[in-house]
Amino acid sequence: MSDMRERVVVTEVGMRDGLQSIARTMPTEFKRRWIDAAYAAGVRHMEVASFVPAKLLPQMADADEVIAHALGYEDLIVTALVPNLKGAQRALEAGVHRIVAPISVSTAHSLANVRKTPAEMIDAFAAMREAIDSAASHASDRAARRVQLIAGLSTVFGCTLQGAVPYEDIAAIARAAVHAGADVIALGDTTGEATPRQVGEIIELVRGVAGEKLRSLHFHDTRGLGLANTLIALQHGIREFDASLAGLGGCPHAPGATGNVNTEDLVFMLDSMGYETGIDLTHLIASRDVLADALPGEPLYGYLARAGVPKQFERSPAIEPSSPSCSQVLQ
Amino acid sequence: MSDMRERVVVTEVGMRDGLQSIARTMPTEFKRRWIDAAYAAGVRHMEVASFVPAKLLPQMADADEVIAHALGYEDLIVTALVPNLKGAQRALEAGVHRIVAPISVSTAHSLANVRKTPAEMIDAFAAMREAIDSAASHASDRAARRVQLIAGLSTVFGCTLQGAVPYEDIAAIARAAVHAGADVIALGDTTGEATPRQVGEIIELVRGVAGEKLRSLHFHDTRGLGLANTLIALQHGIREFDASLAGLGGCPHAPGATGNVNTEDLVFMLDSMGYETGIDLTHLIASRDVLADALPGEPLYGYLARAGVPKQFERSPAIEPSSPSCSQVLQ
Repeated sequence: MSDMRERVVVTEVGMRDGLQSIARTMPTEFKRRWIDAAYAAGVRHMEVASFVPAKLLPQMADADEVIAHALGYEDLIVTALVPNLKGAQRALEAGVHRIVAPISVSTAHSLANVRKTPAEMIDAFAAMREAIDSAASHASDRAARRVQLIAGLSTVFGCTLQGAVPYEDIAAIARAAVHAGADVIALGDTTGEATPRQVGEIIELVRGVAGEKLRSLHFHDTRGLGLANTLIALQHGIREFDASLAGLGGCPHAPGATGNVNTEDLVFMLDSMGYETGIDLTHLIASRDVLADALPGEPLYGYLARAGVPKQFERSPAIEPSSPSCSQVLQ
Repeated sequence: MSDMRERVVVTEVGMRDGLQSIARTMPTEFKRRWIDAAYAAGVRHMEVASFVPAKLLPQMADADEVIAHALGYEDLIVTALVPNLKGAQRALEAGVHRIVAPISVSTAHSLANVRKTPAEMIDAFAAMREAIDSAASHASDRAARRVQLIAGLSTVFGCTLQGAVPYEDIAAIARAAVHAGADVIALGDTTGEATPRQVGEIIELVRGVAGEKLRSLHFHDTRGLGLANTLIALQHGIREFDASLAGLGGCPHAPGATGNVNTEDLVFMLDSMGYETGIDLTHLIASRDVLADALPGEPLYGYLARAGVPKQFERSPAIEPSSPSCSQVLQ
């Protein structure tokens, strides 16, 4: 049966984006438990750390240990976020499979975030590409596995500093990232301002310059449109999405610091539409216990964990449209 | 500019569905204030009361007074929900413009809710039709205005008692409602189990038997899919939606008693996509104050009220697809 389903990759980014967005630091032991629990639920793509100075982000000081633990699972694809060449070198040494470099399409945001213009970040990105290729050419067994370099275009759907980012700028930076050696282009709604029609437009815009390299979307759920935006992205052919368990990072008291799309709610929607994620909802919901243990008092978000999987819910057998019949009732 | 936009009707149902779903009774004076505030925000369709025995639903005991107040606004379309002929007669006397009768497609739910089978409810619905037509034929000025009769098909997307409702049953009951004289068929996700692919399928199924009479959708946001489901319904040509201010009726401590789609979040999504609702978001958000005053301590939901309208947000100029350009950035 599962052969008939179209696969959608859900990357758990809570260990990186979620934890980075809250003030507290999760002890390493709990990060290991979280990875174990996510793996047990069927998650096979995780962004587990970022390589940034520990004094800026103490939450990520244990990146090497966390990555080493994740790499203990042979079929787990392990991603790290890096803002610069030094971070990329550390990520390569740690042995990750994927490196995401954030490249803001907003000059104001880019300067505030990494003190580089977007063009300067593209130069840094090209240097990362060289470092990766050089590591591959001097390869031991593990390093020989070609590491994927992902251009994580940020503030694509709006910037709280600059406001609207002109479509020309988005297209120009996506094109530059491809030329600088991106294996994958990912689009990030950093500030939670994406809206459905705009999502479709920008996907087509970027696809026009990046083609099949445009693969992944990263939504925050700041205005409740995370799943609606995901739906439009699915309709436009996107099959990879980032999400955070329990929407970690959301904070009702700090506007602007809201979490990613909730992993459980996303998987439920994908299941209901007949996509195969490989993730078991019941185990996924149970894995929230790790967060409750590790971060007592931290708000855990999510509709599905509260309401439960509908009694009669069965995943639909395939995503191909078909004429409705009794046996295809989905809920 | 507004001439270019396609109109979407948003019916505020919080005064009926929202208030009916919480244990407390809102004093009549606050209901009047809510209607005033919603009207001031541009809402022109409201479902303000139901005609049910006051001992069953004391929240609705002031239906006549509330309706009289709403009818003070000449261009406000006033709807009441009625479960039986007696309720329809009371609604006619009160002078409403639209009467919604709930007809469950699930036999188990129908028996539990109104102690009638769906077929028996169709008979009651036909009697309401006759009462409306008879009132029109003996018309004074006001009564002469033909009252619309809406078949509000409930548990269409799943029933917590019966589970999945066979598509054949849904189609049969929709057809029967049309034959019994429905002016409009509305589909209700009573239990918050609707999922996007299923929504598209069921709309096409019901349109097959009800044609253009299928006009309105009523979602609850139990599993976070309310806006994603709305998006699919829009794509399938639906242009009328029910919603509740602040998602009133949702209660995290009572699974199963969750609120309607949030009016503010819905209007924001529609605005962002270039639809015209006639509703001003800033005034709409401000109108939540009435709920805070009237129901202190009651949780008020909604993303937009928390996060705010994005600084650079401008409604897109029209819904026709167009090639992306700088001036069309939406956020």
